[in-house]
This record gives sequence, structure tokens and C-alpha cells, in this order.
Amino acid sequence: MATLCRPSVSVPEHVITMEDTLELARSRHADHPQLGLALRLIENTGVKTRHIVQPIEETLKHPGFEERNKLYEAEAKARVPAVIQRALDDAELLTSDIDVIIYVSCTGFMMPSLTAWLINEMDFESTTRQLPIAQLGCAAGGAAINRAHDFCEAYPNANALIVACEFCSLCYQPTDLGVGSLLSNGLFGDGVAAAVVRGNGGTGVQLERNSSYLIPKTEDWIAYDVRATGFHFLLDKRVPTTMEPLAPALRDLAGTHGWDASDLDFYIIHAGGPRILDDLSKFLEVDPHAFRFSRATLTEYGNIASAVVLDALRRLFEEGGPGDRARGMLAGFGPGITAEMTVGRWATMDGDAR
Amino acid sequence: MATLCRPSVSVPEHVITMEDTLELARSRHADHPQLGLALRLIENTGVKTRHIVQPIEETLKHPGFEERNKLYEAEAKARVPAVIQRALDDAELLTSDIDVIIYVSCTGFMMPSLTAWLINEMDFESTTRQLPIAQLGCAAGGAAINRAHDFCEAYPNANALIVACEFCSLCYQPTDLGVGSLLSNGLFGDGVAAAVVRGNGGTGVQLERNSSYLIPKTEDWIAYDVRATGFHFLLDKRVPTTMEPLAPALRDLAGTHGWDASDLDFYIIHAGGPRILDDLSKFLEVDPHAFRFSRATLTEYGNIASAVVLDALRRLFEEGGPGDRARGMLAGFGPGITAEMTVGRWATMDGDAR
Repeated sequence: MATLCRPSVSVPEHVITMEDTLELARSRHADHPQLGLALRLIENTGVKTRHIVQPIEETLKHPGFEERNKLYEAEAKARVPAVIQRALDDAELLTSDIDVIIYVSCTGFMMPSLTAWLINEMDFESTTRQLPIAQLGCAAGGAAINRAHDFCEAYPNANALIVACEFCSLCYQPTDLGVGSLLSNGLFGDGVAAAVVRGNGGTGVQLERNSSYLIPKTEDWIAYDVRATGFHFLLDKRVPTTMEPLAPALRDLAGTHGWDASDLDFYIIHAGGPRILDDLSKFLEVDPHAFRFSRATLTEYGNIASAVVLDALRRLFEEGGPGDRARGMLAGFGPGITAEMTVGRWATMDGDAR
Repeated sequence: MATLCRPSVSVPEHVITMEDTLELARSRHADHPQLGLALRLIENTGVKTRHIVQPIEETLKHPGFEERNKLYEAEAKARVPAVIQRALDDAELLTSDIDVIIYVSCTGFMMPSLTAWLINEMDFESTTRQLPIAQLGCAAGGAAINRAHDFCEAYPNANALIVACEFCSLCYQPTDLGVGSLLSNGLFGDGVAAAVVRGNGGTGVQLERNSSYLIPKTEDWIAYDVRATGFHFLLDKRVPTTMEPLAPALRDLAGTHGWDASDLDFYIIHAGGPRILDDLSKFLEVDPHAFRFSRATLTEYGNIASAVVLDALRRLFEEGGPGDRARGMLAGFGPGITAEMTVGRWATMDGDAR
């Protein structure tokens, strides 16, 4: 059975605190008619620190889409291989054991995807499948887990490598001055995550059933406006309300599996913002403490897009794991509005089942 | 067993002939030091007509990346649903029977992907999985077939919808003056294709085994340079030589399946250019007539990127199909350099196996 093993995560060395963010908002947008609202929204995120690939002075400049995208490529090449190597080591696998690389990233665009470079650079087999996904945004972390699960269902002895590489700071747009943009400027952070889904053996979450759900008629609530200056992030103010329609989808998935979504042993949820976690706690009738891994990611790293769920899962591992047969749920949310969800049980496997 | 059903294809109403293309090259690049070479290369493509979404006068303008991308979205929304509907009708399925939409396109960028709009617009189920792929270029047609196959292996009663939407004319870059760019300007065309992979029943290619192959150290041979003006297509002059290293990968796939790649009943191959087909004929020791479907696509539509393999397969259907149990191979090639390959048998199924 497919097992999602311990994620490896790396965040960049440049740190920006909430106080830095608030001070920047005050100084750069002193005349903004809704500055007070923006400051309150940023404070409410609870994001204490974020890690970004460049010093803040550089981040605030916009050198053009071409330069930004070249920076994305250079930073990805500099940071991703070590994270992958750690994920492989933790899963006790070699690059030659990997059958598919699922690479998700919405904050830079390359064709070919980084997968081609990774196969060459890290000596993956030439027959490794490449599945790059750029258009599922923050939901892509959940989608990567689910497509890896599907692949291992199709080929029970296969192993999938998931990589989420998000440098949200490279999508900062100084000319975007709406309240949603100011909030985003205080919410998103950078991070790289990787994890292996092993077809056999491995310690982690045995993936049992997954599903997707699109909230009807919300496709423009989270979107990129694609311009000469790059990707401009559009965030509708209704997005924080989406847990009410998504909670039933999570309940359905658990219910179909014979479980009660309110009564699971662990929850790994995309921490898009604080209200997402608060509302989901309410609508699923789950103690907020159950979302502590997601909350910690949000507090320490900000919303690192598709990498959030992998980082939250890493924190569950670091707590020691929930114990064998513990039942849990993972869910990523993003543009669409799309939820990518899965349920599974914790499993500890001994020895080399390669 | 997963069956790739009859593809539906639509090409736009604006036609440009090879003579038009040559005349444009002569008039626009009269002083180009390599004009003669460029004209010979364009003539050698054998592309007689191409179909594009705008009149040629509009196509030659560059209104900016933002405008281009908005046009991509508008044209996709105007053209894709009818193509999907025909593919569903041909497969005797309803939107509600589809479990995953695999949408491949490298000539425009949207987040969310068109999949979200399609689900809303065409009343697919809210639980439909979305798999948008933007970064596999021309290989994405093969990748879509293979990932649909994998999905149906994982969930034998599932049905996958594949959509390939390519408006290459919207990536025309008037300032790109290298010989590779002038050649590309005479090679690529626009087209939309869709096909259903049915988990049960259906007439078409029963998908039996798929594989991928990346030619080592060729990741910069086909690439996008991403700039403020959009995607700039980079084509290395070594690309036409890639069938020599790829033919063994095709042989390996067939061989693993117990078949001889030189002795199959049908071939559906990405027609990247004329030399691709000539060389593959040579290295696989296959009669050029076997590639007539791919050749016809190239001649009548040009290289329509990820849609080529689906259009070539449509032509096999229109010829009446190769007969039950006929053994065949499909292959897409694209950036990486990546090949996405599959082998399967023709099957005719009666009645409603929905």
C-alpha cells in the first residue's frame, strides 16, 4: 500500500518578521485609504516570521518577469536537490528507485519543467515519468500526494517523488495596491518540500482513499492575472469563507471510507490563512489543537503555497507520529476553488522493503 | 481495460498556406543573412496549410503578453467545449461519467487552469479530478494518454477525458530572428483535440503498457525563454537528430511487452517535423506509409504540438481502424527531450458498457 513518507523541508535564510511587514506596509502605503484594514488583516494572519530567497530590499524591487523567472530557476536549482536527497534518505530509497517525479510549483514557470534538469543532475533513471503541475496553486500539494497515490495504485511496486517548490516572494508586485494584495504581501512565504510515496514499506501515512472537490462557480476567486510583469495574484475577499462549502466534501470523503471526519486522530490541512483553520475546526467540529501542525507552519513560515501540507506533515513526524493505525486526513486547498483530499492510516514499517 | 476512444479535433477557420508563409518570410526578412536557408527549411517541412485563430495580419502583431494570454483564454473558452462534447458523444459517455480531466496546453497560461471553468460550464461533477499540464510541450499529448491510462489502471471503472488545446500562433514572436525561429514560424499551427479514455468498453486503442524516456543532457534543446513578451520558443538545431536515441526507447517498450517495434500494425507518432518521421522510419525499420496519419496531420495542420498524436489517431479512425487485436504504438516527443510512449491493441466494443 502506498505510504507517504517523512517530508523534507527547507526554507530560505532571509527572515522577515510580522513587525517588519507591518512597518513596511506603514511606510510604503502611508496614504493608502485602507491602510488600517490592511494592517489589521496582516496582524490577524498570525504569521510571525517568513523566510524568503532574497534580502527584503531586493524582494521589494521588480526587475522584470524575465529576471524574476531566471531567479526562480537559479534558486530552485540551488535549493531543491538537497531537499530531495533528504526525502529519499528518509524513505530509504535511491534515485534509481523512483518511477515518477511530481513537481508542483506556481511561483515560476519553466519549460521544460525542473524535472528534466533534476533527472540529469541527480541521476534519476532516464525512464522516470515527469509530472509537472503549475496551475493548481496551493492545492497542488494535495494534488501531488493524490496523483502519487493513484500512480502507486496503478503500479503497486512503484515509488513516487513529490517536490513542492514555492518562492512566493518572487511574485511580489509593487504596483498591486488592493487590500487583498497588501494582505497577500504579509501572508505568503518561500519554501521547498519533498516527500516520497513508497509503493511498499516505509513509515508514514498509508494512503487509502483520495478525492477532489471544486466549489461551483468560484473559479475567479483565486487567480493569476498574467501580465508582462508576471503573475499577479488575485484574491477574492470571499475566499476565507470557503470552509463552509468544503467541510461537507471532507466529511463525504471520510464517510465513504467509513470514518467520521470529526473524529480522526490527525489532520494535515493547508493553512491558507488563520480563518481557514478556525472555520474548519468549527465546521468539522474538531478541536483547534488538532490543526497545530498547520498552525505552526503558518506562524513560522507563512503560507508557503503547495508546500504547506508537506511541512505540516513533517511537524507531525517530528512530534513522533500519531502511532500505528491512527486515522488521519490531509487536504490542500487552492484555485478553482479546489480541494484535494485524502484519508489514510499511520504505519511504521521495519527494514528494507525496497 | 483502458481504451483510448475516437479523438475529436477542431482547427480554426483562418488558413495560411506554405506559399503565404514563404512570401511572408521573403518580405519580412529580405535582408536576413540566412533567408535562403530558412526558406529551404520551411519548404522541407512539407506543411501545406495551417489553421490559426486570428487572420494572419493580426497574428503578426504582438499586442503584449497580457493581451495574448487573454486571447488564449477567450479562444479556448470559445472552441474547447464543442470538441469535448464530440469526444464524449463518440465515447458514448456523459460529462457525469468523467472522473478526471487531463488538460494539456503549452501556448497560454491560466491559473486556475481551464479545467475549473470547464467543470462549471459543462456540468462535470464537482468531484472531477483536474490534471492540468503546461510544461511538457509537444510531449504532453502522449503524457496525457499515459496518465489517463495510469488513472484507469488505478481505478478500473473510471473514465478520463483528455484535452489538448494549442494556439501556437499566439506564441509568435516578431523579434525572434534566428533560423530556428523562422523555421518555427513556418511549422507550428493551432488546434484543439479531445479524447476519452474509457475504463470499460469503447472502441479504439486498448492501452496495455506505457513508458517515458528522457534523452540525457538535452534539457536545453527545446525550451521556453520566459520574458515580458511571453514565451519565446528555443529550438536547438540538434532536435531533428533525436530519433536515433529515441528509437531504442520505443524498441525497449515494445520488447518489454513481447512485441517487435518494427513489426506493429499501426503507429501514431508525434509529427514534430518531417525528419522526425523519416528518421523514425529508418531507425525502427518501418515503412514510411505506416506514418501516414502523422504525415497527414503535419501536411494539413502543421505541428499542432500536444494535439498532433490525437489528430493522427483520429485519422486512423477515419480510415476505418486497423481491425480488432491489431497491435500499435503511440508516442509523443517534446522538451526534455522527453518521449511519452504507449503500446496497445485495437478493440471494438459493442453496446453501452457505461
